[in-house]
Amino acid sequence: KKIYKIAAIPGDGIGVDITEAAVQALDKLAETNGTFSFEYTTFDWSSSAYLERGWYMPPDWAEQLRKHDAIYFGAVGWPSVPDHISLWQMILPIRQQMNQYVNVRPTRILRGTRAPVSQLQEKPSDLDWIIVRENSEGEYAGQGGTTHGHGPNAIATELAIFTRVGIERIMRFAFETAKSRPRKKLTMVTKSNAQRHGMVLWDTVFNDVAKDYEGVVEHDKMLVDAMTVRMVNKPESMDTIVATNLHADILSDLAAALAGSIGIAPSSNLDPTRENPSMFEPIHGSAPDIAGQGIANPVGAFWSAAEMVRWLGKGDLDGVADQFMEAIENVMGDPKTRTRDMGGSASTTEVTKAVCEEI
Amino acid sequence: KKIYKIAAIPGDGIGVDITEAAVQALDKLAETNGTFSFEYTTFDWSSSAYLERGWYMPPDWAEQLRKHDAIYFGAVGWPSVPDHISLWQMILPIRQQMNQYVNVRPTRILRGTRAPVSQLQEKPSDLDWIIVRENSEGEYAGQGGTTHGHGPNAIATELAIFTRVGIERIMRFAFETAKSRPRKKLTMVTKSNAQRHGMVLWDTVFNDVAKDYEGVVEHDKMLVDAMTVRMVNKPESMDTIVATNLHADILSDLAAALAGSIGIAPSSNLDPTRENPSMFEPIHGSAPDIAGQGIANPVGAFWSAAEMVRWLGKGDLDGVADQFMEAIENVMGDPKTRTRDMGGSASTTEVTKAVCEEI
Ligand SMILES: CC(C)[C@H](C(=O)O)[C@@H](O)C(=O)O
Ligand SMILES: CC(C)[C@H](C(=O)O)[C@@H](O)C(=O)O
Repeated sequence: KKIYKIAAIPGDGIGVDITEAAVQALDKLAETNGTFSFEYTTFDWSSSAYLERGWYMPPDWAEQLRKHDAIYFGAVGWPSVPDHISLWQMILPIRQQMNQYVNVRPTRILRGTRAPVSQLQEKPSDLDWIIVRENSEGEYAGQGGTTHGHGPNAIATELAIFTRVGIERIMRFAFETAKSRPRKKLTMVTKSNAQRHGMVLWDTVFNDVAKDYEGVVEHDKMLVDAMTVRMVNKPESMDTIVATNLHADILSDLAAALAGSIGIAPSSNLDPTRENPSMFEPIHGSAPDIAGQGIANPVGAFWSAAEMVRWLGKGDLDGVADQFMEAIENVMGDPKTRTRDMGGSASTTEVTKAVCEEI
Repeated sequence: KKIYKIAAIPGDGIGVDITEAAVQALDKLAETNGTFSFEYTTFDWSSSAYLERGWYMPPDWAEQLRKHDAIYFGAVGWPSVPDHISLWQMILPIRQQMNQYVNVRPTRILRGTRAPVSQLQEKPSDLDWIIVRENSEGEYAGQGGTTHGHGPNAIATELAIFTRVGIERIMRFAFETAKSRPRKKLTMVTKSNAQRHGMVLWDTVFNDVAKDYEGVVEHDKMLVDAMTVRMVNKPESMDTIVATNLHADILSDLAAALAGSIGIAPSSNLDPTRENPSMFEPIHGSAPDIAGQGIANPVGAFWSAAEMVRWLGKGDLDGVADQFMEAIENVMGDPKTRTRDMGGSASTTEVTKAVCEEI
């Protein structure tokens, strides 16, 4: 029996509830299947721990995480800690130091979801995207600073860094993803009209890599501003989408909103070399406004867990992951087991129980 | 009789058609009113001129523009010239050197427009926003570069620069705008969780300026990614929005899409000191795909022209601008005088004629 070691970081707010829900569903899945199981190490790295002891992660955090096959992440961020502190002391260092240079964000309209756009209400299958987000550099390179403090002459900079190596690997991943999908179509997003250095390098590398997929993957380019218009008006015209760290961050939230709820959207932070554990997290945050009420939507957490199973199985557990997704969709198909954000009134526990039963 | 000197730059593609339409409507407005008129200088600065002679604007362009009271801009950008060249040789230098540090983008659902989101189909008045875009610095500062050329080790950077002075003036403008509106509400957008230098300075300055409006303007903060979700799901929860150059670029396109068509959205590039002429342009581009077919939607151009009238009048022509908007909405209310993007089949000329008649 194969044992997968999972580092679980529930983090803050609803991150705790939905991680617990994910663990229950994962265990149920393993039990039903019988060929594998999960062994968890739970890390108490969170904003409340930070407020007590002054740090999020211990000095040997990377070493500790590397002892696991995958990382399951709930959410981080809490009103009493400035967000840039919580994020730069936890989620962003993990993505960067674990070489998780790809962030994959699939979006489609799950059964039982009501999309806000009327075209998608009529034809939910029009929205079926995979957003491939560059996850290691660009606008999140972390460089920049402030001069003249916060006085009247203060100047602050943010330096976005793009490397040929960084761009090429994400482009190859995106083309491969597009190739593996039925429609074989890739849309590349930049803002190369205004940002004439880094974004122009994106254009150049995209064109270079595209040559290797000529006749295999259909491809086009969009400016990020115009892309939002296309996502609203012509969702059916896209399939796989590749964009920079910041652009894809924005577009993937918009995608989740168009697909009906930010509470259902998953994300996988992948190190495709498999030298480091990859990390799986719903794209929603810690939601301080509903934390501790037991009403958080666990679907984004389940979907992320399903993607984790797919990744761990290296092809062998695709059927299991599909079965997990099927169970989730069956539960969502029933109005009685939908949470508030989906128009229902079920609790996190009720949805989790229903999914476990379905499995 | 007051004469306003207008520098008209039709530019590329449909920019030419819609500038002509705007000029016709403006002349009709002046003629009907009788107290003012417009005198135009038309500049042939465009991509086709660039392809012939190698430059967009002559060395003394700034001096030439400064002889006018306002600039009316169609669109720039053409497939045979890389966008970063066309934009950095025309629209961006104008915005920056004419000190047009504010870009105002009002968005609402005009009569006769069908919004894609069903909530807005039922209640169009839920969307009524003014997006105030920082227009002089930030991600469009124009700094950055490429090292190691386009070889395997190429590194390219984009440097976003934020200054206290630049942030403070846009915040004050945004608070004043919010204060002048019935709902007196301002939402400030950043990505200060990931971009911890420039965006944190935005947060700081926002908090400082907010103190002067305590009890007068209600205000809140959003992260740019979450903002897209709120725009789709809770349009009624916002009124005036302030964001950086890039964030507001993206959000204003999304806003236009949610309001029903990118073809109707206006923008005003303002130098609030009035030392330089301000510039008015629809937010849509040159649309090479429909250029020369006479089917471009002139409504964004009219609305931009109405905002120009308002600005030139310094309060005295508000009634005239409102009358112009009323004429536009009356024409849009009639399915026979809507262009293709609005679900109709009218030509640019037909819509223009109808608006002139209404005026
Ligand atoms: C929490 C934050 C740093 C993060 C990001 O911007 O990457 C989040 O918005 C996401 O999309 O995963
Ligand atoms: C043409 C381009 C440089 C411009 C911008 O990004 O500012 C446009 O998208 C706009 O919104 O006015």
